[in-house]
Amino acid sequence: MRESELLAHIYQRSTSLGEHVVVGPGDDCAVVRLTDNGPAALLTTDQLVEGRHYNADTPLDLVARKAIARSISDIAAMGGSPVCALAAATINSEFTQANELFDAMARWALRWSCPLVGGDIAIADGPTVLTTTVIGTPHRDRGAVLRSQARSGDLVCVTGSLGNSLATGRHLSFEPRLLEGAALCDAFGNKLGAMIDLSDGLGRDAGRIAAASGVRLTLESSLLPRAEGADWRSALQDGEDYELCFTLRGEAPAELAGTPVTVVGVVDAGSGCRVRTPDGEFIDGAAMGWDHES
Amino acid sequence: MRESELLAHIYQRSTSLGEHVVVGPGDDCAVVRLTDNGPAALLTTDQLVEGRHYNADTPLDLVARKAIARSISDIAAMGGSPVCALAAATINSEFTQANELFDAMARWALRWSCPLVGGDIAIADGPTVLTTTVIGTPHRDRGAVLRSQARSGDLVCVTGSLGNSLATGRHLSFEPRLLEGAALCDAFGNKLGAMIDLSDGLGRDAGRIAAASGVRLTLESSLLPRAEGADWRSALQDGEDYELCFTLRGEAPAELAGTPVTVVGVVDAGSGCRVRTPDGEFIDGAAMGWDHES
Repeated sequence: MRESELLAHIYQRSTSLGEHVVVGPGDDCAVVRLTDNGPAALLTTDQLVEGRHYNADTPLDLVARKAIARSISDIAAMGGSPVCALAAATINSEFTQANELFDAMARWALRWSCPLVGGDIAIADGPTVLTTTVIGTPHRDRGAVLRSQARSGDLVCVTGSLGNSLATGRHLSFEPRLLEGAALCDAFGNKLGAMIDLSDGLGRDAGRIAAASGVRLTLESSLLPRAEGADWRSALQDGEDYELCFTLRGEAPAELAGTPVTVVGVVDAGSGCRVRTPDGEFIDGAAMGWDHES
Repeated sequence: MRESELLAHIYQRSTSLGEHVVVGPGDDCAVVRLTDNGPAALLTTDQLVEGRHYNADTPLDLVARKAIARSISDIAAMGGSPVCALAAATINSEFTQANELFDAMARWALRWSCPLVGGDIAIADGPTVLTTTVIGTPHRDRGAVLRSQARSGDLVCVTGSLGNSLATGRHLSFEPRLLEGAALCDAFGNKLGAMIDLSDGLGRDAGRIAAASGVRLTLESSLLPRAEGADWRSALQDGEDYELCFTLRGEAPAELAGTPVTVVGVVDAGSGCRVRTPDGEFIDGAAMGWDHES
């Protein structure tokens, strides 16, 4: 069974979760109120698996960075700010660098103003697995930006450039788009529609916005901002870009916090995500993406 | 290296974590404010490893129960109430019951009013590892009950009975002492000193209160409430009881929320945890405990 199917099961199962749960499983973060009428918290958890998300020869510091940065990116995808992190590690008994690993995770967490406040270590056979949980707060005025808030007529935009992240090593050194997400909320408020961070490829992740919002996204292959060495297919389907994809009513900014913004499509009524190829044909974008399982 | 040493490294590393972190690593939960002057949150993360914390033939429902209950117990140890949980699972590609496992974790989480709001699944070689993070709130009036709040003159008390938890299977079916922790806060307020939940054996965990509080705990072997089949050594050193150990100024209650309470010792000036044996000799309690690594 693929991980995406397993996750879909988790999402579907969650119906009534009580009055404190504003958004349950299925978005980049859950949104929960700790107390009646209290401030909302953003919550996200992610696992980084040796041999899957990094190689055994990846420098320890980059492993630690990625373990933290992936979860920070989920906070950015809600337009929020991180508050603190918890890290759990399952390590092999022959792994001798646990202290260095936690030190490095703590350092990277502080880089994003997200102190590591708790941890757990277990020794087990198998690959190293790092589980990072980050707690954050949504933008004070805009509130949490959800996948479900795209509206017909919105533009579809992305930050930065896409594709070839695994081959170039960018998946280990990307900068989570915290500043960009916050700047969007500051500047656009409720004109900002839906948002997601791109972990499984634009085609698939844009399809998630479409599905959550009950709309259709049409992407133009000719407009995709391509990272070095990436063609339009690569920009559309490669995973681990960790750029933001968002929808917007009105005129898109040229940049956010110094990062270029590109309009790549539009939202209209319908369902799914389709992509206009250079030949003018439409293909299914949601089928083009990188499943961490494949 | 032992897990306890690795964890000690995490605790020691954490110095200045910023103004929002009230209590960093090293207690049962971290205590963090999400916003300036906002309500405090309790945060805890724990891993449950197949072959270590349960066996391959343990019924799935009990595995799910323990994965949730251990983290809930950490919230109870702060006198708090759970708000929500996140669960991450690393499973083997041959493990076919991931859906059932998450469903069961979600059910158990709701039993303790702690909806599962997020999850992650990764497939990797090796044993199943379940990482549960629980977010909670401290008692409204008492605030978070820390390991560091024991004072000379306090009584040392425990809930329930101790020992033999692994042999009897109680480690799979224990009831986290949420009601008891809250009742303590309600009834005793600041007369309640320090608190911890007993995961590594009373001797070792009481030593943690002593170390965090800068006091000495003296336990009486003759007073220990022993679970069926447990002698005083077993009650002192067996792990995974998940009862509460706390210190109290004034008269101890006979029960809390229907659970018996037993006075097992006193706090005075000094350091460490010592245990008076039936022969009247003193032994080092902190050395008697169950390291998950051993």
